[in-house]
Amino acid sequence: MTDATTLPSETGTRGGPLDPDELRRIDAWWRAANYLSVGQIYLMSNPLLRVPIEAEHVKPRLLGHWGTTPGLNFVYAHLNRAIMARDLHMMYIIGPGHGGPGLVASAWLEGTYSEIYSHISQDEEGMERLFTQFSFPGGIPSHVAPETPGSIHEGGELGYSLSHAYGAAFDNPDLVVAAIVGDGEAETGPLATSWHSNKFVDPRRDGAVLPILHLNGYKIANPTVLARIPDAELDALLRGYGHNPYVVSGDDPATMHQAFAATLDRCLDEIRAIQEQARAGELTERPRWPMIVLRSPKGWTGPDTLDGKQVEGSWRSHQVPFADARTNDAHRTVLEDWMRSYRPEELFDSTGAPVPEIARLHPKGDRRMSATPYANGGLLLRDLRLPDFASYAVPVDEPGTGAVESTRVLGTWLRDVMAHNPDTFRMFSPDENNSNRLQDVLDVTNRTWDAETVPGDDHLARDGRVMEILSEHTCEGWLEGYLLTGRHGLFSCYEAFIHVIDSMFNQHAKWLKVTDDIPWRRPIASLNYLLTSHVWRQDHNGFSHQDPGFIDHAVNKKADVIRVYLPPDANCLLSVADHCLRSRQYVNIIVAGKQPALQYLSMDEAIAHCTKGIGIWPWASTDAGAEPDVVLGCAGDVPTMEALAAADLLHGFFPDLKVRFVNVVDLMRLQDDREHPHGLSAADFDALFTREKPVIFAYHGYPWLIHRLTYRRTNHDNFHVRGYKEEGTTTTPFDMTVLNQVDRYNLAIDVIDRVPRLRDVSAHAREWLRGKLIEHQRYIREHGEDMPEIKDWQWRSAGTGPVAVTEDAATEAPEG
Amino acid sequence: MTDATTLPSETGTRGGPLDPDELRRIDAWWRAANYLSVGQIYLMSNPLLRVPIEAEHVKPRLLGHWGTTPGLNFVYAHLNRAIMARDLHMMYIIGPGHGGPGLVASAWLEGTYSEIYSHISQDEEGMERLFTQFSFPGGIPSHVAPETPGSIHEGGELGYSLSHAYGAAFDNPDLVVAAIVGDGEAETGPLATSWHSNKFVDPRRDGAVLPILHLNGYKIANPTVLARIPDAELDALLRGYGHNPYVVSGDDPATMHQAFAATLDRCLDEIRAIQEQARAGELTERPRWPMIVLRSPKGWTGPDTLDGKQVEGSWRSHQVPFADARTNDAHRTVLEDWMRSYRPEELFDSTGAPVPEIARLHPKGDRRMSATPYANGGLLLRDLRLPDFASYAVPVDEPGTGAVESTRVLGTWLRDVMAHNPDTFRMFSPDENNSNRLQDVLDVTNRTWDAETVPGDDHLARDGRVMEILSEHTCEGWLEGYLLTGRHGLFSCYEAFIHVIDSMFNQHAKWLKVTDDIPWRRPIASLNYLLTSHVWRQDHNGFSHQDPGFIDHAVNKKADVIRVYLPPDANCLLSVADHCLRSRQYVNIIVAGKQPALQYLSMDEAIAHCTKGIGIWPWASTDAGAEPDVVLGCAGDVPTMEALAAADLLHGFFPDLKVRFVNVVDLMRLQDDREHPHGLSAADFDALFTREKPVIFAYHGYPWLIHRLTYRRTNHDNFHVRGYKEEGTTTTPFDMTVLNQVDRYNLAIDVIDRVPRLRDVSAHAREWLRGKLIEHQRYIREHGEDMPEIKDWQWRSAGTGPVAVTEDAATEAPEG
Repeated sequence: MTDATTLPSETGTRGGPLDPDELRRIDAWWRAANYLSVGQIYLMSNPLLRVPIEAEHVKPRLLGHWGTTPGLNFVYAHLNRAIMARDLHMMYIIGPGHGGPGLVASAWLEGTYSEIYSHISQDEEGMERLFTQFSFPGGIPSHVAPETPGSIHEGGELGYSLSHAYGAAFDNPDLVVAAIVGDGEAETGPLATSWHSNKFVDPRRDGAVLPILHLNGYKIANPTVLARIPDAELDALLRGYGHNPYVVSGDDPATMHQAFAATLDRCLDEIRAIQEQARAGELTERPRWPMIVLRSPKGWTGPDTLDGKQVEGSWRSHQVPFADARTNDAHRTVLEDWMRSYRPEELFDSTGAPVPEIARLHPKGDRRMSATPYANGGLLLRDLRLPDFASYAVPVDEPGTGAVESTRVLGTWLRDVMAHNPDTFRMFSPDENNSNRLQDVLDVTNRTWDAETVPGDDHLARDGRVMEILSEHTCEGWLEGYLLTGRHGLFSCYEAFIHVIDSMFNQHAKWLKVTDDIPWRRPIASLNYLLTSHVWRQDHNGFSHQDPGFIDHAVNKKADVIRVYLPPDANCLLSVADHCLRSRQYVNIIVAGKQPALQYLSMDEAIAHCTKGIGIWPWASTDAGAEPDVVLGCAGDVPTMEALAAADLLHGFFPDLKVRFVNVVDLMRLQDDREHPHGLSAADFDALFTREKPVIFAYHGYPWLIHRLTYRRTNHDNFHVRGYKEEGTTTTPFDMTVLNQVDRYNLAIDVIDRVPRLRDVSAHAREWLRGKLIEHQRYIREHGEDMPEIKDWQWRSAGTGPVAVTEDAATEAPEG
Repeated sequence: MTDATTLPSETGTRGGPLDPDELRRIDAWWRAANYLSVGQIYLMSNPLLRVPIEAEHVKPRLLGHWGTTPGLNFVYAHLNRAIMARDLHMMYIIGPGHGGPGLVASAWLEGTYSEIYSHISQDEEGMERLFTQFSFPGGIPSHVAPETPGSIHEGGELGYSLSHAYGAAFDNPDLVVAAIVGDGEAETGPLATSWHSNKFVDPRRDGAVLPILHLNGYKIANPTVLARIPDAELDALLRGYGHNPYVVSGDDPATMHQAFAATLDRCLDEIRAIQEQARAGELTERPRWPMIVLRSPKGWTGPDTLDGKQVEGSWRSHQVPFADARTNDAHRTVLEDWMRSYRPEELFDSTGAPVPEIARLHPKGDRRMSATPYANGGLLLRDLRLPDFASYAVPVDEPGTGAVESTRVLGTWLRDVMAHNPDTFRMFSPDENNSNRLQDVLDVTNRTWDAETVPGDDHLARDGRVMEILSEHTCEGWLEGYLLTGRHGLFSCYEAFIHVIDSMFNQHAKWLKVTDDIPWRRPIASLNYLLTSHVWRQDHNGFSHQDPGFIDHAVNKKADVIRVYLPPDANCLLSVADHCLRSRQYVNIIVAGKQPALQYLSMDEAIAHCTKGIGIWPWASTDAGAEPDVVLGCAGDVPTMEALAAADLLHGFFPDLKVRFVNVVDLMRLQDDREHPHGLSAADFDALFTREKPVIFAYHGYPWLIHRLTYRRTNHDNFHVRGYKEEGTTTTPFDMTVLNQVDRYNLAIDVIDRVPRLRDVSAHAREWLRGKLIEHQRYIREHGEDMPEIKDWQWRSAGTGPVAVTEDAATEAPEG
């Protein structure tokens, strides 16, 4: 591989657009960045090689990734030239994020690094610290990370570069996002589908993404698929993805510089032409956006071979090409020759600062990719203009009545949030926006769509702001990119399938945790999930659609960034959603049903309840403020209804029983205040749940989470939790609760079994309740739907329905 | 859309290969399957429409998906013709698995359904039951599910049809797997990358996959991307994926039948030609496998419009096209006209059985796709020939010595497992096989690779059995398909990134749970994960690579199917791995490090320990079998080492302290035996952990899992658990444990703080331990690596190192 070619060959740029001075400066930048990258990986002193490298100059533990880095540095240098020449706003997203030293090197060359981290100055001392801190205890991570200026993309986990890049480009019309897609990363599923993001970008309103597929040929130990298919096949694939690909291939630096510069110019010309045409109203079809395929050797410019084995252009250069530079004199000589091959004496002056020739290549101020505010989105973040959610309230004259689709009510408010924030708020969903009852937002916007349309299409438009693709990964990636560049959004998803992005969530939560401790990183808007079509109302889709475990997954992350809300009704959902859209630096998980359901609280009550996050519902309690016999706790809309119905049944059987009814909206209130910022103090918790009375808790998800959250509590041993225990199929809504024993009858039995003074006097009640469970089974198998007394149950009918005090029960009523 | 075309047009089959009789029979089958599908969705009686449909014939809750179903039925009919004509072994994988009624209908037409479920007979009574049970309480799920004969693919969660299909085809040279890819599903990441599976199939040794991309145009509420890009772009995409695509497009049944039959013939001819050429040794290049694009209307043959709105060919036919057939007389008439349009009187005889013309279309016995043993893999499953793992043992003369890479030892055994089972065992990994130290298997096989090769490539071959692609999704999907068709495998993965397949794991675990209760489903080999490169040894890749939470995710699933093992050393790992490869119907999670680590148990001891799953290590204990002062528990290789070192420190300070050392291999032993089949009884647990003494537990993962597993235990309140708490970065290995306070010094402090008689006499020890933590911090920041006393620590040196009884501590030695 010695040729550089740009394809299609008719670009005619072999001579190249760079004059000798430009070529020299670009190459100098590249050599400087490569030098600094190798230095970071290997050295802890003697950064300018003023003396031959000695063993003690080399770090004892060599950790880092060289292979991808020279390619990243190469592109960086060329992007800088383009930014200068075209006065661009540009961001750089690095899919192969383990190439951390490259981005750090460029940030240092641009001066940004020293501005942010003043001890890493642009001189010999700073360079030594720059080298030493890399992958070193107390230093910086080896990957592109939150600590890296100019980054919004960690890159430790692969697959999200393009979706992040598009998320950054949306609603930023002046921004060009250059996105390096590694050829390893390109094999991941999330990346493979994210190419289709180009059907969701509006050239009038949005910025552009320039994908650069970097074929350096190898992963950790294997060749990459895309580097090992014929050129024509790769070309077809990328055209099939909707792109216009240009190939730059080779390893001779001078030739490659000319070829890449010419290709980059051509791509940026095409992007500008598309945008100008679109913004003049002259573009009718989806444009074919340009992209670049850069085929260069892995570990380019590194040692060609070592001990007779190929290193450059091989998987052997993936990480540290040789790890024994401290102990092996010959290898240390290889290192020295390698570093000197960049001719550092031409790149840095006697103080260690980059020479002016290099400094002249990079743009100034916030045009530097390492300093762009787009990559520190909190700098650009504006509050949302939020309409008063209280005015969208559902009237609730009596608690436990009505039949309201909570998410549909939320949709009316979101419609106006959308209308009031026409360029800083988007909604994301894997084709579930309407299924999740949020369709009112389509009154003021459309679904984003730049593929073909046909008559009869419903609310599809290039400038729509509801983003739907059947890929949770792409939705999540877009939203993360949008948030990280200073905007706001909401991801609505079927509860079970949010697990598809468990791992992406991990990375975002880790990003937030780390940035909390980086002063120059400004807070960004929270990542808001609305999980609906939840486990209790997936009776029609069955077992595969039933999984409430995302909450469990999320609470493993740092308490500082995780919030979980289970609003029991529409007014609480409005209050919670308003709170979440105002918040910063969190992941907010809201779980709320979309099916018609009872409403409990007026808006004033809802605000009071959600502000506390947990509280007693006096109207459902019979303890009259005194110490109760039992606490009925609940969290989640369906469990709340079942717990209420159980309270009703119990009251019918045992009018003297003192039941305290506690509803939890903010799940983290259950946790100890030493564990979570929202946690209740021990005294407050005990005041609610008592110190020794039985607590029967009906929970939306897997029951053990409640135990986990409460295990330090005084009364924990008396907590008896019901929730989803992986029982389900296609059945009726109520039967789902019965299968998992979180239904009203089983909850009432639980109370009877745990209140000592009821145990011996309640044979009739227990028998009656068990009979109801059998009657339910028989009824649904015959009729295919729930019994009317279940379907029609309301708190208003409490005590007046078929369940009432029977003579038998009354005579058995317990003594105090 | 009225034309049927096969592209490329030179197929010249517009006239079509079907003679009038064949055409009539295929169409009859299709109509019958469609009729039965609609009947399942809507009716609970009057299955043969002997009388006009009355309200009470219609189910009260209508649940199901019509839109995709007629297309699935269409293909099924054509595949049956091909099976008969060519004597094929064929499987049918349905990506859009919510089209459940279609597969059930075909299984009933083939007689399989009645053979398995005798009450669903092939007569009117059986048909009524067939209709009623669908999406009905006590009946069957609405999706293709474990209950569906002929299925290995649930399809509730989208994205895995192709990877499952390839998994089924591997090592089944006589099998053709027809895989329907829905155009909704095609937008998911996992599906988008799984097209590249064609670079990992060997036409000599493996069967073939025939992908059928079904463009019916709409998802729940939106058009699909692939249906809305130009034909040429779609063609390029599929060619870019390495396929040779043929398009069949239209909606006129007769024309479509001819076109599809011709195209299917052509594809099967091409497949046969490829295989014959390959098997004759004449194929040198990767073949371009054929595939079909079927473009047909969503809800094909259903109502064209309803109340003036388009239904057929629109998203409105996705689920139940109209849900009020019970209450709306006009709509009930639409239903009746729709069902009668299939002319049921021609399809079923007077008893309700399919007419002979239909019965003649399907193959017999186990060639029926609904009865193929390939889709009930347990029928084909053979035990692995497993070499005696004990003979791969690492010698351990003294516990807590040595420096062995446990997974490398495992690799020597796996090498021979691979050699002994040359066609029923494969290993899967996202490019991490060698990184995970399993490279010895490459002594006896290669990495599967049918893309281009170049000189210097390392162990790449078309017939390799180590499957590596940088897609956890594809690895998981391949392995699941391989297991479900009766073979064995192992998935090795970086611990953090196994979360990528959380949601796939969910579906497989649910599949296993359901099949446990289906007698005709035979047990399959367990799904074995080897999670290595784990949280405690990702010090070099940093925070993004640190997540031990997959265990937490997994234990939310049914205890019957989940097993978690944390072997502390190589011999235990061998013993555990042997056990897992012999097991059936489980998901086994093995977490084991790949870095050089101490070894503790001889093989005999390891077998004894792993058989119990949990046990006291007497050599590390000082309680001499009596009631201890404190229990030091541990699970996981790194926590075990730290706990041992803590025991050593404590012994140095407090020679009289009675420490019991308990190691846990089988994590589920901690749980109550009422909760998990592996759970210890209360008595056995108390015998190990005491009823009231403090327990300091060093755990591999998030600490709360140990609380969750033990919260019902007598002594739970005295459990103090250390584990990963989301603290990490690029640092030293030991510092990772310090950051999370699971290191030896902190563990020793924990003991001191919790053993009452130590609390007041241990000021010196506590101070000394805190000093060590400070010394550690200072040392790593200066040297970049851990202190020699940490790096070199072995149990052999216990009591002889820098930590010993000091005079001060000795004089403070506590009283009993």
